[in-house]
Amino acid sequence: MSDNPVIAHVTRGSTVESRHRGAYVVSDASGKVLASVGDQATPIFPRSAIKAFQCVPLIESGAADHFGLNDEEIALCCASHNGEPEHLRVAASILAKSGNSEGHYECGAHWPHERRDVIELARSHAEPRAIHNNCSGKHAGMLAFARHLSFDTAGYIKQSHPVQKAVAATLARYCDVDIAAAPVGIDGCSVPTWAMPLPNMALGFARLTNPSDKAGQWIIRAVRNHPFMVAGSNRFDTDIMQKIPRLFIKVGAEGVYCGCIAHAGLGFALKCDDGSIRGAEVAVAQVLLGLDVWSDEERGVLQNHATTKLSNWNGIEVGVVESLTD
Amino acid sequence: MSDNPVIAHVTRGSTVESRHRGAYVVSDASGKVLASVGDQATPIFPRSAIKAFQCVPLIESGAADHFGLNDEEIALCCASHNGEPEHLRVAASILAKSGNSEGHYECGAHWPHERRDVIELARSHAEPRAIHNNCSGKHAGMLAFARHLSFDTAGYIKQSHPVQKAVAATLARYCDVDIAAAPVGIDGCSVPTWAMPLPNMALGFARLTNPSDKAGQWIIRAVRNHPFMVAGSNRFDTDIMQKIPRLFIKVGAEGVYCGCIAHAGLGFALKCDDGSIRGAEVAVAQVLLGLDVWSDEERGVLQNHATTKLSNWNGIEVGVVESLTD
Repeated sequence: MSDNPVIAHVTRGSTVESRHRGAYVVSDASGKVLASVGDQATPIFPRSAIKAFQCVPLIESGAADHFGLNDEEIALCCASHNGEPEHLRVAASILAKSGNSEGHYECGAHWPHERRDVIELARSHAEPRAIHNNCSGKHAGMLAFARHLSFDTAGYIKQSHPVQKAVAATLARYCDVDIAAAPVGIDGCSVPTWAMPLPNMALGFARLTNPSDKAGQWIIRAVRNHPFMVAGSNRFDTDIMQKIPRLFIKVGAEGVYCGCIAHAGLGFALKCDDGSIRGAEVAVAQVLLGLDVWSDEERGVLQNHATTKLSNWNGIEVGVVESLTD
Repeated sequence: MSDNPVIAHVTRGSTVESRHRGAYVVSDASGKVLASVGDQATPIFPRSAIKAFQCVPLIESGAADHFGLNDEEIALCCASHNGEPEHLRVAASILAKSGNSEGHYECGAHWPHERRDVIELARSHAEPRAIHNNCSGKHAGMLAFARHLSFDTAGYIKQSHPVQKAVAATLARYCDVDIAAAPVGIDGCSVPTWAMPLPNMALGFARLTNPSDKAGQWIIRAVRNHPFMVAGSNRFDTDIMQKIPRLFIKVGAEGVYCGCIAHAGLGFALKCDDGSIRGAEVAVAQVLLGLDVWSDEERGVLQNHATTKLSNWNGIEVGVVESLTD
């Protein structure tokens, strides 16, 4: 792997404390590159950044129509959510509409993201369940797909199951990736994750914006209309999409961001080498700011998100995370 | 800043997913370097890795003797603890012995580190207090120092207060740093943190091992006898010191490790460029393993700590964090 440049740094007082390296690319649906920095060849695990493609089979199979899923539910299928009550309500609705239940989940359980939800759960003497898992929307969608096509849902997380084969075929088609040859790993929620170079991810997201792509149009409309479903309270993705409704952006674990700008037909992908989310957030905002596709108001929002203030336990501002990608 | 090499990486399946760069140095008390990699010149914020030096004035002033502090209490003064019940008990003891109370704390409050302690606190409908702060032992020690020398404790966290001036003088003396010229920032617990090159930190820790240094001897004995006090359950520092009682090692925020090997008269310092703790942990274990000062058993422990297994929400092993420093 070649050396990627520093794309963000962290300051304390007026001194640089830490540095984040990374690479990114912005392209259109023909693969034409509008901006890029760093290594474009090494396969990167997109992790949750490509949940949109994991949702495509649900729509293309007719399952989403058959079960009457709405935009809010499709948005949650593409989410890494906080496990807040609203997220749980929508996940439960997908399960109920598709004839599945929490017992079918194979994603594992973890505590909700927000402290207040942890406190609430602890005070009710409850344990976190699979539906609290940040991927529970995606898994509800996978279970709905399996149910609609009458597959046994057991083992739907395995690479050999028709659910994951459909995801693999979707990624291959949108991202021009030879999935059989792609490095594969097991994701946090136990489904396979296939590594691919950043340009392939950006290409897939650019293609998702094709007006004749029914699944892409539904997904983009859903996440843009329901940004809270995609992440939740105090989350970069939700905040920036609430302020820029023309943007679809999605985080992936280990410092990945992907997304698309439908009105410009562009897709983008970014990876922070060290897996840092804080670095990826400010850097991706700066990358987007560099594109000539925004209103002044949208540019102002992106500018604000290209820096994150850091406060200590007394609320004193001690430094910033700031982008260095321009 | 020059380019530091990759000192640790993270794999998923058989593929490298993320990379951590960094620098380190091992030296003796004369400043003779036994091992080093990467940038040795750029000032680095040591953060909590140098709590030992923040504790030195407490001992040298006679305050620790005057208030009858024991080894467990001195260890907590040098700690970034989990806020577990045992840590709170010892912090409260330091406060009580020195005529201070929780109301004197100026470090700010945060929730305990371990999930079970968060649940316990939530179920008792309590809020976290300053004594739960991972630095509450250090701050109890600073308050004891101020009380013993009859300083007003109010504002003891400020750079202009005699407490912090004593800390600055200690760092200057042990680490050969011109503190007045050193970059300064505000730490998480609101006290000043001064940046210095890694060799200066390693030098300070090597000097701490001097058998005629009363403060150094007490601190090293205390932390080695009470490794649980220095961090707590499920923490790298505690675990490795419990298994290698001849080692004193201390984490600092943003990927710093410092410490000393008293039987060899050595000090060491390491910084992961991106601020990652996971990278710093495995890398520092490998750096220590490279020194010819350990028994076979100790080498086995270090070897084990140079790799960390990563599991997902279903407990499936999905990858590792492993050192690349050898």
